[in-house]
Amino acid sequence: MARIVMKFGGTSVADPERIRNAAARVKREVEAGNEVAVVVSAMAGATNQLVAWCQEMSPLHDAREYDTVVATGEQVTSGLLAIALQHVGIEARSWQGWQIPIRTDGAHGKARIDAIEGAELIRRMRDLRQVAVVTGFQGLGPDHRVTTLGRGGSDTSAVALAAALAADRCDIYTDVEGVFTTDPRIVAKARKLDKIAYEEMLELASVGAKVLQTRSVELAMKEKVRVQVLSSFTDAPGTLVVDEDEIVEKALVAGIAYSRDEAKITIRRVPDRPGIAAAIFGPLAGAAINVDMIVQNVAADGTTDMTFTVPKADLPRAEATLAGIKDAIGYAEITADRDVAKVSVVGVGMRSHAGVASTMFRTLAEKGINIQVISTSEIKVSVLIGAEYIELAVRALHTAYGLDAA
Amino acid sequence: MARIVMKFGGTSVADPERIRNAAARVKREVEAGNEVAVVVSAMAGATNQLVAWCQEMSPLHDAREYDTVVATGEQVTSGLLAIALQHVGIEARSWQGWQIPIRTDGAHGKARIDAIEGAELIRRMRDLRQVAVVTGFQGLGPDHRVTTLGRGGSDTSAVALAAALAADRCDIYTDVEGVFTTDPRIVAKARKLDKIAYEEMLELASVGAKVLQTRSVELAMKEKVRVQVLSSFTDAPGTLVVDEDEIVEKALVAGIAYSRDEAKITIRRVPDRPGIAAAIFGPLAGAAINVDMIVQNVAADGTTDMTFTVPKADLPRAEATLAGIKDAIGYAEITADRDVAKVSVVGVGMRSHAGVASTMFRTLAEKGINIQVISTSEIKVSVLIGAEYIELAVRALHTAYGLDAA
Repeated sequence: MARIVMKFGGTSVADPERIRNAAARVKREVEAGNEVAVVVSAMAGATNQLVAWCQEMSPLHDAREYDTVVATGEQVTSGLLAIALQHVGIEARSWQGWQIPIRTDGAHGKARIDAIEGAELIRRMRDLRQVAVVTGFQGLGPDHRVTTLGRGGSDTSAVALAAALAADRCDIYTDVEGVFTTDPRIVAKARKLDKIAYEEMLELASVGAKVLQTRSVELAMKEKVRVQVLSSFTDAPGTLVVDEDEIVEKALVAGIAYSRDEAKITIRRVPDRPGIAAAIFGPLAGAAINVDMIVQNVAADGTTDMTFTVPKADLPRAEATLAGIKDAIGYAEITADRDVAKVSVVGVGMRSHAGVASTMFRTLAEKGINIQVISTSEIKVSVLIGAEYIELAVRALHTAYGLDAA
Repeated sequence: MARIVMKFGGTSVADPERIRNAAARVKREVEAGNEVAVVVSAMAGATNQLVAWCQEMSPLHDAREYDTVVATGEQVTSGLLAIALQHVGIEARSWQGWQIPIRTDGAHGKARIDAIEGAELIRRMRDLRQVAVVTGFQGLGPDHRVTTLGRGGSDTSAVALAAALAADRCDIYTDVEGVFTTDPRIVAKARKLDKIAYEEMLELASVGAKVLQTRSVELAMKEKVRVQVLSSFTDAPGTLVVDEDEIVEKALVAGIAYSRDEAKITIRRVPDRPGIAAAIFGPLAGAAINVDMIVQNVAADGTTDMTFTVPKADLPRAEATLAGIKDAIGYAEITADRDVAKVSVVGVGMRSHAGVASTMFRTLAEKGINIQVISTSEIKVSVLIGAEYIELAVRALHTAYGLDAA
């Protein structure tokens, strides 16, 4: 017997038939003797419609009213799933964020969960064998109003609820079968991972069609919640996201991630003096522009070239910000390149094994792919390359690290 | 300066454009210096979709979960209207039933309002000039869950809120221009009434396409809330529903109502003994069948014929119930007739004027219409006639009582 939180995403509850399918999965867990709480998203498409209505009423809508409107999506699903469960003979009731309550801070539209009062839910799961069907994505703010956690927040709701209920596992049902070694749309031989460490999952966030929201993984890591990502459309086991200590046979590289969402900026001939990096990146941070890879090359003449990446969507704002500080800093010119892509190899095994980076560089060199920027972290090596090489690079690295399915 | 509750029905908030239109009407009242609270229905069609989903999950769905699901319709509208008001510069916020709270009993799906805590709303209307946008149709039950009042309950929400806020008026915006002397689809010369008494409105409930929910009129009468029915699509003044003391020039007849929804049952040769009526109507009441017109004719042989009407939808159940008690009662036979219609003339003026009934009988006789059953109340005379005469009867009576528009 275990205590399980099951989370169903929008595509898993997209219509009454799929809600019945979700109910059947919950019934199976209950009949196996488990205590079950369920977290639901809005029916696929519902949230988009609600957001569109808010936009139509006013482009600059009040975040509190936005929350009131969009939170209804999950409320509908919670009631329907409770009905579907009762219909197949399972005790169930729906819980809105404000009823439990799931307390959040007051940042409407992007609130963070502060606390979940789980005692009553545990009592009902244990004593009444009653399934709690909880609305994801929302809670109750200090102003006694409904708050939402931001898009994809239902994963975070599920992990937070699993922590509050001291659940043995948090199963995230979605439309993919788990976490893959890389994007199966690019690499046909991509393999589903049985287990992956929290930190690897965080680094691989971009792999496999946004499998898990980053915040939910951070929370799972902090609260030591065992998360399973699995498909609601098959019966195959999914991928367990766990502490790295649980992974006995650590692969050198767990997976290959890539991103086409960044652009490269180079600032040429910046005076090479103390505080120059702060003078450049301070204003960018002030403009809420997220700078990723940063490389600095010192030239012989007392100037330096500074290269870094920003999200493509922020490129015009970044250029404008840098133009505004040109006189204060005194650089020669700025160049920007949108035709770049980032490839990363990720694995906790890197901590104890050398040679991961050199394998990457050699593999790319053999394919004639030029590396523009390199950055590394403890469990990741990332390189920036020309955008046209992205599929070639991902496939070559997938083979080079022995990740291809047999 | 007045304090006004404005209620917008489903067709008045059917889409973003109509919600903007409703916002413009609210803005006008606020800018005229009034304190305004708004009660909203779900966008037209939304509730039907939500009800259909519940049905699809289970025909015998839990009323508590049904309430959770369908209450989202008004929640969406409340948020969108608040956004629309803010967009045109009016301070506004949405209020869910559980936030105010609007306390109801625990009869999920058909709850009754027990109390509304209006102090905070009044403070905000008065001190902050903030419009309260309140979800109609719902409240918070003793089980700390969302309750709904049953279809059409938003009118009742509006009147109850007007009472709680001591509002000067409750304006019900709908898709008709007010209360008419009779159904304009039958009588082209039907006139819109400027004023009508609560009791007349109750009796005329069937006139004018379900203008007001009966419960809301009962509550308005009890709490002395002045109600105005008016169109959200024109700027014409509507009909004021008020205490009869406010109506100086009382018409003999305020309007003509009709119904095609009843069927006639006759029980022949019932033993004419004390308690026989209770023996018949007790079981019908027990089966939740609403009996309307009742007539008893005593025959010479110690038996009596009993005639009454029931809703057509309940006729099969009524016949089955009566068949079940045939031996206990000992009647000869039952006949049922679905081809009947009821016509009523209504007016508080009848209290002080004789001759209303005889004018009705004479008018119908002149048109060759046979009267099958007659029943009267203090302010109403109803007759049952053959269904095919209904339009003829309504038109003739409308003319006979001088109600035709010039």
